[in-house]
Amino acid sequence: MAQGTIGDSEFDRDTAVTARAGEPGVFDARLSEGWTILRAVNGGYLLALTARALGAVLPHPDPFTVTAHYLTPSEPGPAVVRTEVIRTGRTMSTGSARLLQTDAEGREVERLRVTASYGDLAALPDDVRTTAKPFAIPPYEHCPGGEDAPGGLPVISGSTEIAKRLDLRLDPATAGWALGTPSGRGEMRAWFGLADGRDADPLSLLLTVDALPPTAFEMGLQGWVPTVELTTHIRCRPAPGPLRVGIVTRNLAGGFLEEDAEVWDAQDRLVAQSRQLARVLLG
Amino acid sequence: MAQGTIGDSEFDRDTAVTARAGEPGVFDARLSEGWTILRAVNGGYLLALTARALGAVLPHPDPFTVTAHYLTPSEPGPAVVRTEVIRTGRTMSTGSARLLQTDAEGREVERLRVTASYGDLAALPDDVRTTAKPFAIPPYEHCPGGEDAPGGLPVISGSTEIAKRLDLRLDPATAGWALGTPSGRGEMRAWFGLADGRDADPLSLLLTVDALPPTAFEMGLQGWVPTVELTTHIRCRPAPGPLRVGIVTRNLAGGFLEEDAEVWDAQDRLVAQSRQLARVLLG
Repeated sequence: MAQGTIGDSEFDRDTAVTARAGEPGVFDARLSEGWTILRAVNGGYLLALTARALGAVLPHPDPFTVTAHYLTPSEPGPAVVRTEVIRTGRTMSTGSARLLQTDAEGREVERLRVTASYGDLAALPDDVRTTAKPFAIPPYEHCPGGEDAPGGLPVISGSTEIAKRLDLRLDPATAGWALGTPSGRGEMRAWFGLADGRDADPLSLLLTVDALPPTAFEMGLQGWVPTVELTTHIRCRPAPGPLRVGIVTRNLAGGFLEEDAEVWDAQDRLVAQSRQLARVLLG
Repeated sequence: MAQGTIGDSEFDRDTAVTARAGEPGVFDARLSEGWTILRAVNGGYLLALTARALGAVLPHPDPFTVTAHYLTPSEPGPAVVRTEVIRTGRTMSTGSARLLQTDAEGREVERLRVTASYGDLAALPDDVRTTAKPFAIPPYEHCPGGEDAPGGLPVISGSTEIAKRLDLRLDPATAGWALGTPSGRGEMRAWFGLADGRDADPLSLLLTVDALPPTAFEMGLQGWVPTVELTTHIRCRPAPGPLRVGIVTRNLAGGFLEEDAEVWDAQDRLVAQSRQLARVLLG
């Protein structure tokens, strides 16, 4: 596999959008089969693609806060993104984007509604007064990936196309579910990279926050955990090198749970925070 | 002051919206001066009013996840809410709402964009497997309110109209800022009620999550901390009685910070979680 770089990688090719001639703010895209889990297209991939189209119509380069409402299941194949510029300001701008696919009757069906504010991460002052500390995780080489896990990690290996495109290394302390011995705690931690070595940027962080197995698996639950809503704050441009992703669920109640994710870069900076509300559909 | 009840209280009257005849999905409203901090209309109040209009067009009664992007400063006076139904499903529905005011040139200016999914909290199963525990806070009677605080709590007392409508009792451990001795920690905790005694419901929780002084004050910062984006998950219908609100900021960087809020009811249930991204504009 050729080394990926920002702008020339699997991720960049598969999130490409093409402005439709004569229809300002409308973009054609193709949802790749390469980012699926069983038949479902990964929600973070869909978000990154949609945010890329939105970024093309807003005057600021970087997503600062991005909210997605997941409406109907996406399928690999053609899609269209229809954007709306809500407000442009001096330092930030806000817009909305709809990801749509055409059904068998020829009607456009909305998959995803994104509302987001963009700014310029490079223009922010350097002040940091954070009390946040990186969570503990064993070194990369001590965390099993898809190919070398004892017993295999079914959801992040063979049956899922996305596993080929990610270099995901789970903390063994949160990988018990794959061996039939979940910890019972709503925690998931991993080293994260793109398989072709492309470095992280704000757009790929939108994939990163939704790329780990569900915390519900470590809580001993099986089945599908579809996202209802996912909000991501991008706080800093990530440095080159592997990322660490930690996800915590505190409250499973009434068939819903939250997943709180944080992403740290190789320079120990908190580069993204996200929270999603998801349904627990027991298998 | 007459005892308020759900449906008949200051909060209900001031968040009232009136369907505009002949324009489906459009509602007239009046932003009350009663929920201002200096001249700014409280963001949680704006959110509750806008969510009330959205709830009127969606088939499900309760906001489950509500995201607001704050675009321009609202002013007391007339406003209009324009809603859009995005998708209605069997158990959940999703919509969008714009809160607008007319400027001096007669143009509609968007104040707030809300995107939200609604459901029926009463229809959820009773399963709770939460590991979340209520935070510690001294008893209600040991927490100072606006009228009895040593030295006064300027932002939640005299100069702000909203203080008259809230029964907000700050944990003394997070009220040092009001006496010129902030703790340096990004934490704010309080007992919360409406001054007229109206019980909490999902709509009023949208006010609750944005009603405390900014955590930045306890970090020793002064000035304005305008919300960019606020997402709230309503997880449970709150029981009657006072609420406890805890807000934590971990990451102040590049002139932005997050505020993570959780709201607990009198039966020790986690009824709401919220996170906002806010700018720090030093005074």
